[in-house]
Amino acid sequence: MTRPHVLIIGCGFGGIEAVRKLAKAEVEITLVDRTNHHLFQPLLYQVATAGLTAPSLAGPVRHILRKEIKSGRLTILQAEVTGIDAVARHVTLDRGEVLSYDHLIVAAGATHSYFGHNDWAQHAHGLKTLADAFNIRARVIGAFETAERCVDDVARTPWLTFVVIGGGPTGVEMAGTFAELANHTLRGEYRRFDSRSARVVLLEGADRILGALVPSLSERARKQLEALGVDVRTGSRVTHIDAEGVTYETRDADGATKSHQLASRMIVWAAGVAASPLGRELERTADAKLDRAGRVIVESDLSLAGHPEISVVGDLAAAMSHGRGPPQPVPGVSPGAKQMGRAAAANLLRRLRGEPTRPFRYINYGDLATVGRSAAVADVPAPIFGHVRFSGFIAWLFWLFVHIYFLIGFRNRLIVLFDWAGAYFTFERHARVVATPAPPDREN
Amino acid sequence: MTRPHVLIIGCGFGGIEAVRKLAKAEVEITLVDRTNHHLFQPLLYQVATAGLTAPSLAGPVRHILRKEIKSGRLTILQAEVTGIDAVARHVTLDRGEVLSYDHLIVAAGATHSYFGHNDWAQHAHGLKTLADAFNIRARVIGAFETAERCVDDVARTPWLTFVVIGGGPTGVEMAGTFAELANHTLRGEYRRFDSRSARVVLLEGADRILGALVPSLSERARKQLEALGVDVRTGSRVTHIDAEGVTYETRDADGATKSHQLASRMIVWAAGVAASPLGRELERTADAKLDRAGRVIVESDLSLAGHPEISVVGDLAAAMSHGRGPPQPVPGVSPGAKQMGRAAAANLLRRLRGEPTRPFRYINYGDLATVGRSAAVADVPAPIFGHVRFSGFIAWLFWLFVHIYFLIGFRNRLIVLFDWAGAYFTFERHARVVATPAPPDREN
Repeated sequence: MTRPHVLIIGCGFGGIEAVRKLAKAEVEITLVDRTNHHLFQPLLYQVATAGLTAPSLAGPVRHILRKEIKSGRLTILQAEVTGIDAVARHVTLDRGEVLSYDHLIVAAGATHSYFGHNDWAQHAHGLKTLADAFNIRARVIGAFETAERCVDDVARTPWLTFVVIGGGPTGVEMAGTFAELANHTLRGEYRRFDSRSARVVLLEGADRILGALVPSLSERARKQLEALGVDVRTGSRVTHIDAEGVTYETRDADGATKSHQLASRMIVWAAGVAASPLGRELERTADAKLDRAGRVIVESDLSLAGHPEISVVGDLAAAMSHGRGPPQPVPGVSPGAKQMGRAAAANLLRRLRGEPTRPFRYINYGDLATVGRSAAVADVPAPIFGHVRFSGFIAWLFWLFVHIYFLIGFRNRLIVLFDWAGAYFTFERHARVVATPAPPDREN
Repeated sequence: MTRPHVLIIGCGFGGIEAVRKLAKAEVEITLVDRTNHHLFQPLLYQVATAGLTAPSLAGPVRHILRKEIKSGRLTILQAEVTGIDAVARHVTLDRGEVLSYDHLIVAAGATHSYFGHNDWAQHAHGLKTLADAFNIRARVIGAFETAERCVDDVARTPWLTFVVIGGGPTGVEMAGTFAELANHTLRGEYRRFDSRSARVVLLEGADRILGALVPSLSERARKQLEALGVDVRTGSRVTHIDAEGVTYETRDADGATKSHQLASRMIVWAAGVAASPLGRELERTADAKLDRAGRVIVESDLSLAGHPEISVVGDLAAAMSHGRGPPQPVPGVSPGAKQMGRAAAANLLRRLRGEPTRPFRYINYGDLATVGRSAAVADVPAPIFGHVRFSGFIAWLFWLFVHIYFLIGFRNRLIVLFDWAGAYFTFERHARVVATPAPPDREN
């Protein structure tokens, strides 16, 4: 008897957890991903800002799953999935190979969305992949290098104006770390300007940053950012981006809009996320319903309506948590993806045993956001108190502990701790070596 | 009184040493380099083979020279020098800026040479810069990934045949480390083939590898390489390289040549080095004489004949060592570049004080080459014994000690030791994370 073949697309948090759960059962698994690594995305901004090297938070997926490979049940292919045929039950890869499946778990994640303004992409740099992080790193370091070559302040100022668009966790972390780079790491290293003269502006369309947190923590995070020297501008809606900089609108008390210009050569896009295009593929072939962000609406057990052999997990899924009380949307955070990956795999095994599947329930262990050096905010559900909310240095230590803890299985955590401890005490960021001879922003 | 302006081109070993020597004197220094980092080139093959991350052996040049910047005498510009005018005493940068100088030290180094076959460059990858190292890393890891996607051995074999052209130190190190990757690091991580089935072939035109060493050490290095599984083919002259692989010629006992084909999708070029194109610029503007490799022939004090205000050091210089006995050519190794950088700076200061300059004398502290895990050969001049020559594990420990020692001033040496110790005991190479989604060799 041949084992049923489970095909898993994506080796993010959801895909890896699904493989681990399934590898103990009598199934044949194929994992397909475009890259050769699993990425600990919550720390990606540290690579983009030269605080950590890539191997500290990206592990070769073959190494992470080496035991599962040795068990003889897992094949990993580095390839891009270009099509899904839910009727014939197969997927097509970028070189035309066809892989049939008995069960399919789609964990293909999300990418950035420019809300229909794809021409903004060349000027406002997103942060989803390692390649994105290296791009931003080269541009930030390159902007300071270009500033040293400028002969006057008029030419120099746009290179020393860093604009971060989007006040979610990534935007807040990037803005805080840019300020640290300018005020500490690079201080004293330039002759023609003071690195502390660089400006960091954080633009957010809503009236507060970190909108997923309670307002009191948003306010504390804003104060912490401002203490680091970040210019936080909420209620600022971006209307245009080009090589010269950013145009945004604000609305005054009587509702009139006002337009503002910010000349900048270094813009980070942390505003919008769109689901993987494989969502559209499921819509086409399996009649899947998508939400406004392109995410696939799944059943309570994470499978697709009409296609119980297909499950969607992680950022590509618009899933609900079925706990006590009415169903709640699952937030797009890594614990959510992990829990979905495990749950989809468990339901798949239940199906194979002829048992009924179970609805997915998301367990929230807390919300955390870091603002920069020694500053963070935390909101942890506590059984009796309801919520414990705290901020500042203690929250930052807690954030550090949680992130180091979840790096298990990556590189030696001691090295990451070393890197961080070194960076903390010396302010130096060793990863600011850029391979490209010319700063890539030179052309823009 | 304004201080004399010394312009230094290149932040390799020669340039950095010249800056350090000059920064204590009453001169204004400008250092120009295309990149933002100083590279510890002797370990670059470790980045190419995923053993070390870039920050372990490349330091931001502004960080390395931060004290000199703070002294108020050093300006660093990340820029490419496109022209030198020895008559007007200025250089031109890539954006058209003109920098005048009173003294010029050219330490622009070398690049790889394909001996007139520039079309080979796209198939046979050189290793001189960090970008080169990342390119080779992505291609090697990508070749194994592609092999896993191949459906039969006919398609797979060229992806698992690694050819290294050139049996100098870099070629020997690369070949040994490729063998280690295939036989240990990646073992058991693929389902459709055994990583140990990969072949590593080292092609050398001469009749022995490591031709700069004495024949007995060449022979030992060859034995060590063969023990690692490397197929060493000396007397093999490469005649053609294309997307399908390498063609090379051997000569049998009666002098007849025979042509051989090696199907390979992963070729490393470690055979030829050419001086920086700035040598031609000095020929044009300052009547400098070049040798066959394009290196600038310098006076005994490292200055240019007829242009005492210009010195050339490092791999760009064809310099002689003036010790006891007849002058000897200075070898193209990092201690040579460092000593030349210091000597040129010292002679420059002597000129400023109106003193006569001194001829350069190279002090050889020994030759070292590593072959791979726990294997190396060493030849150390000893005052009484003449030479101490040794090989094997002791030579490897010596090699490790020397290289860690000279990494001073880079990143925390403890981290490098950690990385190495980890790699040594686990065979894992953490840096084998590749940012690019698709292996770049896919197109070839």
